[in-house]
Amino acid sequence: MYQGITPLFTKLKQMDSNNPLSFHVPGHKNGQIYDNKAIDYYGKMLKIDMTELPDLDDLHAPTGVIREAEALATSFFQSEHTFFLVGGSTAGNLAMILAVCNEGDKVIVQRNSHKSIINGLELSGANPIFITPEYDQQLGRYTNPSIETLQKALKLHPDAKAVVLTYPDYFGITYPIREMIEIAHSYNIPVLVDEAHGVHFSLGSPFPTSSLHLGADIVVQSAHKMAPAMTMASYLHIRTEFDLMDKVAHYLELLQSSSPSYPLMASLDIARHYLATLDRNDLHAIEQSVLNVRNILSESNHWSVVPISEKSDLLKITLHVKHGLSTEEVVRAFEKEQVYTELSTHNQILFIHGLAPFGKVKDLKKAVKSVNEQLINRVKHATIDISKLFNEQIQGLVFSYQTMKRLSHIVVPIDQGMNQIAAESVIPYPPGVPIILKGERITAAHIEAIQHLLSQGVKIQQRHTGIKIYSKENTGRPVSDVPPGL
Amino acid sequence: MYQGITPLFTKLKQMDSNNPLSFHVPGHKNGQIYDNKAIDYYGKMLKIDMTELPDLDDLHAPTGVIREAEALATSFFQSEHTFFLVGGSTAGNLAMILAVCNEGDKVIVQRNSHKSIINGLELSGANPIFITPEYDQQLGRYTNPSIETLQKALKLHPDAKAVVLTYPDYFGITYPIREMIEIAHSYNIPVLVDEAHGVHFSLGSPFPTSSLHLGADIVVQSAHKMAPAMTMASYLHIRTEFDLMDKVAHYLELLQSSSPSYPLMASLDIARHYLATLDRNDLHAIEQSVLNVRNILSESNHWSVVPISEKSDLLKITLHVKHGLSTEEVVRAFEKEQVYTELSTHNQILFIHGLAPFGKVKDLKKAVKSVNEQLINRVKHATIDISKLFNEQIQGLVFSYQTMKRLSHIVVPIDQGMNQIAAESVIPYPPGVPIILKGERITAAHIEAIQHLLSQGVKIQQRHTGIKIYSKENTGRPVSDVPPGL
Repeated sequence: MYQGITPLFTKLKQMDSNNPLSFHVPGHKNGQIYDNKAIDYYGKMLKIDMTELPDLDDLHAPTGVIREAEALATSFFQSEHTFFLVGGSTAGNLAMILAVCNEGDKVIVQRNSHKSIINGLELSGANPIFITPEYDQQLGRYTNPSIETLQKALKLHPDAKAVVLTYPDYFGITYPIREMIEIAHSYNIPVLVDEAHGVHFSLGSPFPTSSLHLGADIVVQSAHKMAPAMTMASYLHIRTEFDLMDKVAHYLELLQSSSPSYPLMASLDIARHYLATLDRNDLHAIEQSVLNVRNILSESNHWSVVPISEKSDLLKITLHVKHGLSTEEVVRAFEKEQVYTELSTHNQILFIHGLAPFGKVKDLKKAVKSVNEQLINRVKHATIDISKLFNEQIQGLVFSYQTMKRLSHIVVPIDQGMNQIAAESVIPYPPGVPIILKGERITAAHIEAIQHLLSQGVKIQQRHTGIKIYSKENTGRPVSDVPPGL
Repeated sequence: MYQGITPLFTKLKQMDSNNPLSFHVPGHKNGQIYDNKAIDYYGKMLKIDMTELPDLDDLHAPTGVIREAEALATSFFQSEHTFFLVGGSTAGNLAMILAVCNEGDKVIVQRNSHKSIINGLELSGANPIFITPEYDQQLGRYTNPSIETLQKALKLHPDAKAVVLTYPDYFGITYPIREMIEIAHSYNIPVLVDEAHGVHFSLGSPFPTSSLHLGADIVVQSAHKMAPAMTMASYLHIRTEFDLMDKVAHYLELLQSSSPSYPLMASLDIARHYLATLDRNDLHAIEQSVLNVRNILSESNHWSVVPISEKSDLLKITLHVKHGLSTEEVVRAFEKEQVYTELSTHNQILFIHGLAPFGKVKDLKKAVKSVNEQLINRVKHATIDISKLFNEQIQGLVFSYQTMKRLSHIVVPIDQGMNQIAAESVIPYPPGVPIILKGERITAAHIEAIQHLLSQGVKIQQRHTGIKIYSKENTGRPVSDVPPGL
């Protein structure tokens, strides 16, 4: 299929060129009515912020230009069907989980999944079986569950309705997911993959292979994270023997806006075009630029740059900060130089290179030099061993989501949450991966990890301080003593 | 609270002015990496399509500029708290329903609600009690449920967890909702209002009063429909005695993207500023413009302009097409002149005037003249009486949503759906109000109405032709004979 066109974006441009008179929503009337103070930033884009006019098709039942744009994406990504998402990968992750399971159904889920996966479990009322990722001593971080752990979980729960994995991890590290998919399929169980950071994997070498091409049934990719699209623009790819297509379409329509944004949808058309028209020379230039940026970033004795491996995404550049130095301090030093990074853990900082050669080499060199100077004679900070954060290899929740809906909660200081049942997930953001899961028992390791992150200035997504735990009132005895399935 | 500022948008502008180096998502790196063919439309806006950087706060746990922007909206709309929505009013409607009810809970719902309300019921597994709207002979359209119908429903179902209403209707018509809210509150039941088309009602005269100021507990408004904001930008206002704030916040976080779009969020900041800074003169000028546009549109003997009443929204201009003339034909004639309308029913066409004086008077005059000429000697079309479309004044579904999840379905030609149980809602779009509800028994009136709309060229949101009905296989006998609560 010829990839050099953008049917949706081109149609919007064409509509704009006719200077139509708008007597419909949106209220800005193709940008003619907008606050003067912002027209400079919004004006041109608003000309294509249109609505479901006759020639502009309908995301929720596409038959025209949106269908054509999705067909081009379907062909480029080699899926059975590719859905355009305007609700971010969140919408895709929620929809795929709702599509595979009904209330009470078992779902085997990677423990260190993004919160949108955990939210999908809650929304569907599933019975999650969490499989714990391996701890990589060298990287000092949890990666992916082992094949053995998945095998064990499947033996214990052959009646699971799906296996949900994250690939690659936030740092762009992949793993032998093909084998894991084959094992799940041998149990006749579909595999759903949150591939939010892998939209560019369909380009092939020098990038790892997309799980979609390794047998995954449903794969969700953020077009905006690693490709150039508007934030919240994502793809859901489906290629499966299981009867899921209709259900996925149903839940996407149910969850997503009934007036989806055309600039967002068109940016998916445009991002597909951008990816599809990158040639070998472009990819080579990007690769060279990454190596150059890595060299510039390696000019420090405060950190080391984690080496590239065949299983890692070239565009993810990870700094491993020297023992005892606070990653937050390093990040703040970079920000003083107007250099903004993606995220930091207790010992690493992630830089994401774009899908084009990096243009501001001089500025970056200058920034690194200044950061090095800023960090001279820094006092050492406490460090932490998080290798004991996740204990059980295979773990359920203490309460079902149905039970949790009926319980009430109280907010207590974090250290008083010890051994209680969490009434909310505790989620550092980014990356948005829960340390404590809503419905599990809070451990000393949880509390230590959270207190350490807070001391490092990491943001925890909460509308309050402390932690929500289920209160005793409901049961008449300590809620932490209430057996599962109360 | 001083309304002359836009803290979120201003911060984004300030960040942009520092020319930051982006090593984070999104992949377009503040617009530096984007497809050349689209940079013209997107470039400037992408400079503020940023992510959760330290100074840019976090929609899901706001403490900085987003909190300030929401506080200004809270003050302007006089709510207890106003949430910014990036998932459209759909996200707000889903969240408010999930917040009030658990599975199986009764919820009293206006029968002619937007599909996002119906979807919220399905998602929550609620037990909906539908109250039928009155049929207005003069307008030839269903409007709102009567106070008596609501009273009857509350007497029958005093254990309902919420009353869900739509106000105003799609044509901007309001009704005595204050009394209905007071009746529901007398049963200690909260009232949730889909006020998607009423964001400008907070301006006061000459517009009707917002249900938020008439006692509603939760009110969802599309900022993009009647105010100048980006499509998908909406507000959820809450002001209530019921314990709903935390639950609403929880479900909004659960349903909406974990990387919300900053241009969308900032357009909510800007739309609030636009509304808050309109003065009496501006409103007078808008009023005069509406009258002028109404005069121009009334220059035809093919239709009449529905008069303004004290209960109607000035900005909604409705053409009532002469008996036997096809509304779709009139709409197509306008489109030939590059005039695009909001929607048409079997007998009416809706024009929406913006919140600023209309600038292209000459073009509109020319268009109306040409449309009149195009319509000379049109053949008459069949008309339809839809006054019998909704029979039962108070109606439940044949199957619970839980049961429906377990049933399978088949697709049959629409006329063969007679007396079967619908496995999907049938939704003309716009306005997106279901004619047939998923889970109800299909009647002759349903089929006649749908066939008439299709013959008129109205779009029905479906990924197939025909209609999905539940198949007999699951129960061993005609599914239409299966009693409720199977």
